[in-house]
Amino acid sequence: MNVVHHQERLVIETRGRGLTEVTGQVTAVVARSGVETGLAVVYCTHTSASLLIQENADPSASRDLVAWFERLAPDGDPRYTHTLEGEDDMPSHLRASVTRTSETIPVAAGRLVSGRWQGLFLFEHRTAPHGRTLVVHVHGEGQAHG
Amino acid sequence: MNVVHHQERLVIETRGRGLTEVTGQVTAVVARSGVETGLAVVYCTHTSASLLIQENADPSASRDLVAWFERLAPDGDPRYTHTLEGEDDMPSHLRASVTRTSETIPVAAGRLVSGRWQGLFLFEHRTAPHGRTLVVHVHGEGQAHG
Amino acid sequence: MNVVHHQERLVIETRGRGLTEVTGQVTAVVARSGVETGLAVVYCTHTSASLLIQENADPSASRDLVAWFERLAPDGDPRYTHTLEGEDDMPSHLRASVTRTSETIPVAAGRLVSGRWQGLFLFEHRTAPHGRTLVVHVHGEGQAHG
Repeated sequence: MNVVHHQERLVIETRGRGLTEVTGQVTAVVARSGVETGLAVVYCTHTSASLLIQENADPSASRDLVAWFERLAPDGDPRYTHTLEGEDDMPSHLRASVTRTSETIPVAAGRLVSGRWQGLFLFEHRTAPHGRTLVVHVHGEGQAHG
Repeated sequence: MNVVHHQERLVIETRGRGLTEVTGQVTAVVARSGVETGLAVVYCTHTSASLLIQENADPSASRDLVAWFERLAPDGDPRYTHTLEGEDDMPSHLRASVTRTSETIPVAAGRLVSGRWQGLFLFEHRTAPHGRTLVVHVHGEGQAHG
Repeated sequence: MNVVHHQERLVIETRGRGLTEVTGQVTAVVARSGVETGLAVVYCTHTSASLLIQENADPSASRDLVAWFERLAPDGDPRYTHTLEGEDDMPSHLRASVTRTSETIPVAAGRLVSGRWQGLFLFEHRTAPHGRTLVVHVHGEGQAHG
């Protein structure tokens, strides 16, 4: 066993505002890393999209969550001054500020330790579809694959 | 000195909604890891409980914090559609979404570097008591204990 | 190449409530660490100041963000009981609870992978200026500098 640091970039195409599950893609990076015991860090390189870990079983949870964020930081609030890119510009930054730019998940026996009902989601805050870049960094004890 | 990766699971019994301090249990894992300089990651394997680092001295801070989250994401809001497990189901996911699934704390001289007034808390969002699983992963330079 | 763990403390003087960009100071720690591929963790040792990654180009985004947090967790709300240090005491803890105590950013080719528009900010929540301590921990594959 030796210490492995493995890094990949993923580009995720979103369909506009809402959650896109990326658990499968990150799981595949962990498998390619060869890490047995360690950590997986997922980093979102944007300020109008973010990450969170949520219920992955029932789509009603995601719908309610997106609707709640729309009430928390509404589009087009006349108090916003940062409006260059439109009514959804500033609320996108606000929603990103209270969710995560990175998530860190331990790896055990070569797999993410996330709970049965946990999914890792990219949260697109803009109303238009975007290509979003995530950096996945996995490190720990393992066998570097050839 | 060599590179150590040390991982343990903790099960925390909560008493229903509110904060349970886990700083002591995590400090004990760091001590058992033998890591001198590195990082401790604490990961919560649930979507209706989460983590945060807060004032550990005055219980009034925790009370006000829990009360504020109850106003931010109220129980029983008629706009929720994800209500299978009751009035506290969806607000639990919402409160988890704006707090943390994981916290990362540097380790120096074999100890967490957290500030004097900082405690690490498990935040139970459901009204009923639950057993909650945390994965603690500590890595860095140290002496692996035999 | 060998595994490096490098840790430094930074003291940031804030000018009272608002955002102070610390990307430059953290970038300098990464350079001093000699890490080529790895992770940079920044940890804030306080409960009334926190971290977040936000738009770094347009000051209107920071102004709107600070104003939104003032609406989300207002100063002097009569429902607060934790008021020993004044009207801005409890809202500081609340604002810290929904932003970050730590941020983790991957390092590639010796540099932070943050996006073009991302800045790392220390968010001072108290109205008075404070000296705030950040612990920066960088680890990964690299050449330890002599």
